[in-house]
Parts: sequence; C-alpha cells; structure tokens
Amino acid sequence: MVEQTRFEAGSQALADIDGAGGQAVVDSLQDIAPDLGRWIVEFAFGDIYTRTAISSQQRELVTLGSLVTQGDTAPQLTVHIQGALNVGLSQEQVVEAILQCVPYVGFPRVINAIHVARTVFTKPARRAV
Amino acid sequence: MVEQTRFEAGSQALADIDGAGGQAVVDSLQDIAPDLGRWIVEFAFGDIYTRTAISSQQRELVTLGSLVTQGDTAPQLTVHIQGALNVGLSQEQVVEAILQCVPYVGFPRVINAIHVARTVFTKPARRAV
Amino acid sequence: MVEQTRFEAGSQALADIDGAGGQAVVDSLQDIAPDLGRWIVEFAFGDIYTRTAISSQQRELVTLGSLVTQGDTAPQLTVHIQGALNVGLSQEQVVEAILQCVPYVGFPRVINAIHVARTVFTKPARRAV
Amino acid sequence: MVEQTRFEAGSQALADIDGAGGQAVVDSLQDIAPDLGRWIVEFAFGDIYTRTAISSQQRELVTLGSLVTQGDTAPQLTVHIQGALNVGLSQEQVVEAILQCVPYVGFPRVINAIHVARTVFTKPARRAV
Amino acid sequence: MVEQTRFEAGSQALADIDGAGGQAVVDSLQDIAPDLGRWIVEFAFGDIYTRTAISSQQRELVTLGSLVTQGDTAPQLTVHIQGALNVGLSQEQVVEAILQCVPYVGFPRVINAIHVARTVFTKPARRAV
Amino acid sequence: MVEQTRFEAGSQALADIDGAGGQAVVDSLQDIAPDLGRWIVEFAFGDIYTRTAISSQQRELVTLGSLVTQGDTAPQLTVHIQGALNVGLSQEQVVEAILQCVPYVGFPRVINAIHVARTVFTKPARRAV
Repeated sequence: MVEQTRFEAGSQALADIDGAGGQAVVDSLQDIAPDLGRWIVEFAFGDIYTRTAISSQQRELVTLGSLVTQGDTAPQLTVHIQGALNVGLSQEQVVEAILQCVPYVGFPRVINAIHVARTVFTKPARRAV
Repeated sequence: MVEQTRFEAGSQALADIDGAGGQAVVDSLQDIAPDLGRWIVEFAFGDIYTRTAISSQQRELVTLGSLVTQGDTAPQLTVHIQGALNVGLSQEQVVEAILQCVPYVGFPRVINAIHVARTVFTKPARRAV
Repeated sequence: MVEQTRFEAGSQALADIDGAGGQAVVDSLQDIAPDLGRWIVEFAFGDIYTRTAISSQQRELVTLGSLVTQGDTAPQLTVHIQGALNVGLSQEQVVEAILQCVPYVGFPRVINAIHVARTVFTKPARRAV
Repeated sequence: MVEQTRFEAGSQALADIDGAGGQAVVDSLQDIAPDLGRWIVEFAFGDIYTRTAISSQQRELVTLGSLVTQGDTAPQLTVHIQGALNVGLSQEQVVEAILQCVPYVGFPRVINAIHVARTVFTKPARRAV
Repeated sequence: MVEQTRFEAGSQALADIDGAGGQAVVDSLQDIAPDLGRWIVEFAFGDIYTRTAISSQQRELVTLGSLVTQGDTAPQLTVHIQGALNVGLSQEQVVEAILQCVPYVGFPRVINAIHVARTVFTKPARRAV
Repeated sequence: MVEQTRFEAGSQALADIDGAGGQAVVDSLQDIAPDLGRWIVEFAFGDIYTRTAISSQQRELVTLGSLVTQGDTAPQLTVHIQGALNVGLSQEQVVEAILQCVPYVGFPRVINAIHVARTVFTKPARRAV
C-alpha cells in the first residue's frame, strides 16, 4: 500500500496546488515517458509538497524564485503562477514575487516571467467540467 | 531629499532583514566599487524590499529559491539564510525551502545550499557590539 | 527633483541607445508591472548607462556577451543587437562580438544568438512616426 | 592540406553522426556567419568527434546530458536526439538518457527535452533525396 | 515492504556506482536534512539508476555531461568521476567525455572539470575498511 | 604548415592578450588533457582572437560580460581581467564593464566578479623571469 499511498498523496497535492495545469503536465508525458509523470506525482508532490514545515503558499513562492531564475521554463512558470493563485496568493503578490528576483537575476528573466504571468492572469480559468 | 530617502529607507530595510551580513557586503565594496554597494542599498533594498505587497518572510523565500537555483552564490546564500532567520523563519523552514527546490533544480544545487545553511546555523551569531 | 532627474536621464539614455525597442519594452510592462518599467529607466539607464567610464559601444559589447551567455534572452538580444547598431557598431562587429562567445559558452548559445541577429538585421527599421 | 583534412574529416563525422540535421545547421549560418559553420565542422567535428577514446554513442550521451542541462537548446537537442538515433541508440535509450538528468537538473529541463524528443521521434525521417 | 525495497535497491545501486563517495554525500546530510539523503537513495538511485534501458556506464556519461555543463558542481563531479571509474570507464574515457562538452559549453566549464578529474585520479582510493 | 600556423598565431595572440596567465592555463592541462590546451591556443586564440572585425579591447569586454554572467568562472575571470588590463583597458573601465552586467544578471554574479577584480588589481604583476 505504501507505493500507492505516495501516488495517492501526490495526486491529491498536485490537484490541490497546481490543479488542472499540473495534471495536464503529467498526462502529456503518458505516451513517451509515463514514469516521468509518475515521479512528478510520487516524488515531487507525494514526498515533498505534502510536508508541513512550510505552507503551500510558501512552497509556491520558493518555486517562483527558482523558475524565474532558471530560465527557459515558461511552461513550468505557467503552471506554478496558476498554482500560486490556486493556493491563495493574489495576482499582485505573484507579480511582486517575480519582481523580487530583479536584484538576484536581473531584468531579462523577470521581464520574461512577467509576460508569462500576464498570459496566466488573462486566460479564462480552466475548468474540470 | 528624495535620493537620500531611498538610501535611508534602503539602509533601514537592509539592517532589518539581512542585518550585519548585508551591511558587510556593502562595506566590502567601498574600496573598489562603492556605487555598487550604494545601488544594493538604494535600489534592491530602498526601491524593492520596502514594498508591501509581500512580506519580508515571503521575499526571503523567493530569494532563497532564486539563489539556490542560480548556483555559485554561496556568499549570497549565507547572507540570505541568515536574513530568513532574521525575519522570523525557523531553521526548519529554511531547510524546507531549500528542499522545495529539488524538483526544479535537482540535487546538486540543493546539497550545496544545505551545506551553506549548516554553516550559517552553527556559527556564533554576529553581534554589532 | 532628484527622482525626476534619474527618470529623465534614464529616458534619454534609453532613447539614445536602445531606441524604439527599449521604449517598447518599458511600455509593454505598463499594464501589469509599471514599476518594473520605471526601474529599467531609472536604475539600468538612469543610474548605470549614463556613467562615462566606458562608452555606449563598450556597454553594448558587454551586454551582448552577457545576453548571449545567459540564454533564453531572445527578446533582450533583439533590443540590444539593435542597440549596438544604434550606437555605431556595424553588423559585422555585432556578429563578431557574438562569435567571440564561442570559446566561453560553446556553439548552441552562439548559433541561437546569430539567428536573432539575422532577424534584427533584415527587418525594416522601426520608425517613431 | 592539413586544414582541408580537418574540414573533410569533420564533414564526414558530421554526416555520419548528425546527418542532414547537422548539415542544415551549418548551411543556416552561410549567409551571416559562415566561419561559425566552418568551425562547427572543423573544430567540433573534425578535431573532437573524430577522436576514438569514446564511441559516437558515448559522445551523444554526454551531449544529451549537456544540452538537457543547459536549457534554451531545443534546436540543438533536435539535432542531437536525431544524432543519437543515427549512431544506433534506440528511442527508449534516448528517453532514458534524458530521464537520467532528473536528479541533476530537476523536472523542468527534462520535461522540455522529452517534448523535443517526441517531435523528433514522430516526424518523418529527413531524406537527402 | 515497498518503501523498504526502494531504499534497499537504491542503497545497492549507490554502493555499486558511486561507492564510498556516494554514501559520504548521504551521510553528510544526516544532521540537517536526513530526508534529502533518503531521497537521493530512494528516488535517484532506487527509482532511476536501477532501470535497465541504459547501462551504468551510459548513465555516468550522461551525468558527466550534465554536471560539467551546470557548473558549481565540483563536489558532485568528484563523486561521479569516481563513479565513472567504478563502473569501468577508464581515466582516458572520463577525460574524453569531459572534452566532448567543449563545443556545447565552452572552455571554462571544461577546464574546471578537468582539474576536478585530476584530483580524483591522483588521490589514494577510498577504502571501506 | 597550416596547422603549425594556427598554433603559432594562437600562441602569439594568447601571449599578447592574456599574457602569462593564459599560458599558465594551457600549461596546467599538459599532464592530463594536452589537446585541450592545444585547442585553446589553435581554436580560441588562433582562429578567433586573430580576427580583426573587433579589437582586442572589444573582445575582452565581450568576454567579461560572458564570464561574469556564466558564474563559477573565477579562474577564467582572473585571466581575462588581467587580459583586459594587458590590452589597455584601465582598472576603472574593467570595474565599469562588470557593473554594466547588474541589470542583466543581478547583484550576486557582479559582486563575486568585483572581488575577483580586486584580487587581480592588488596582486604583484606576474613576470616571466
């Protein structure tokens, strides 16, 4: 049951935090690398996101800092900017978190991330039904 | 007076958040690039850290995500891990924030950052007097 | 007046160096993160580009080296390749500056930047009117 | 004759390993930076790929690790994923090599590379005639 | 038992491939982030290294490409250069794998990695007893 | 004779630009990867630095932008900051070139590079005899 529990716990965390966008990432890997999708659920979300030392909002803030800095992560920023909104951060707070990266990675990465944020903010919300 | 206000506001924010470690960074630049130190105070801390859309704790979480991800930032991680403690995050929360980066940047960056955290946690607190 | 002077000086430097492309970047941020656009003008261009220890041509050469190396910076390379031409570097010199990065970052970053350069070189010049 | 030999040896290695995709990269640089294309042939392929201490399959595995990690390298990954197939690695092995990067660079870089692999795997093979 | 099996399988793979150096990394995390060490064993080695689509030699070649490229990974390169030797690659092949990165990331990363390789090659082998 | 010419031309360029520091890099590779040192001379310096579309000063400015941005390049920055001085840039201009990177890569990379510059500026000049 343990393995199932990791997958189940991860699936729940993925749904709670990243919502439909997170599941879409996992689904997109089914045809070519299904284990990669499973590891995202079991390891990233089952092992890590379920821990309680920091909140989901705090996790998304760290994640935004990481993704903005790394670059070439527009698809992941799209998921996690939506994720940040899903866990209760406001659009203003998401923008501010991205701006906080200016002193550490400079303007180009931040400008690119802000344009991703606009796209997330302005698209119609994805619905499950 | 405006320029002075940016410097003053930044100096206060730098002292409140990064404490002696932040001031040490600025001081270390006086002999060779004093304007660089001034920009850190005026721009990073005066213009950005003083904004209120997110809290100092939230800023430090974003910053940890950024610095862990960027790599070759041990001196800056040292300052901002201490800064995270200064604004009220616990050692456990700092460790957890660093661990949150594993899915996004892998183990090497995270292992290196954890060893920086240990050094910060175990050194005697710097005192002004 | 000081703050205004930084903005004014930065606006002038931005116009002189990056031209319409630089202003377009600032304008593109007005709806979502106007302060980010303001910081580009005041800090990057007002505080830094106005300094005289190196010339605008020298600044653009450093900037090309930085942007080519960083990766995921095609929009910024577009602006600064045009900026390099605006301050008097020739197309041949811009290409050569990009080629100079091969020993330091390898072929992929350089090939990608060369393709951006082609796009800049072949598009009709943007006009203000 | 030596210089010719480097170019000839490199052209042969480029054709053997990266096939039409590699030649297309070189050709794409002819109008703007022909020496860049020549260096790829002479230096990367003539000087390096012709060495025998490791096999072409081993070279492509190292190269996949490098390109996945670097990010913003989709065009180069496209060429070298095809190259890996050209030298006899299976689609399953290419996917596995990309997955091997998860512990070292995290999920975003790997997910992006997997989507490039799918594109390479599903497109009709390029033919010379 | 499943969870135990992942840990056990990972411990075996870690011992087989990275040897004492890999275990030393895990041990070094016990006091501050023991779960991080556990994830390296269970996820990196238990879930990934145990897969059979590519060999251990092939995994280490991909890993070398990744670590050389990422930079700021001297401790990890130290472990995996030794790991590459442990799984049967020769010193000459390890050097060649590092040199293969020159066209993709340039000379600085490769030079730094070569100096790490020298340190690994010349130190007395670590023994368990 | 052609191959010899590339090596000779590269050796001269290396000596003219990076001086003893450049030769020391090449020498440091003789025991473990002599071809890597040869490629630096033949390819980087023989093929590229000898071109005349931009000056040696301009090449060093691009190189500084690249190395500051890449990170984990302190040894290379040491050589090229000295190289920049060798080709006639002043200490003030080198500092300014490094500061020019702040808007593009943020403060950490720039602070680290400034400390490398101080070390270069304050060490006694290396002499051949």
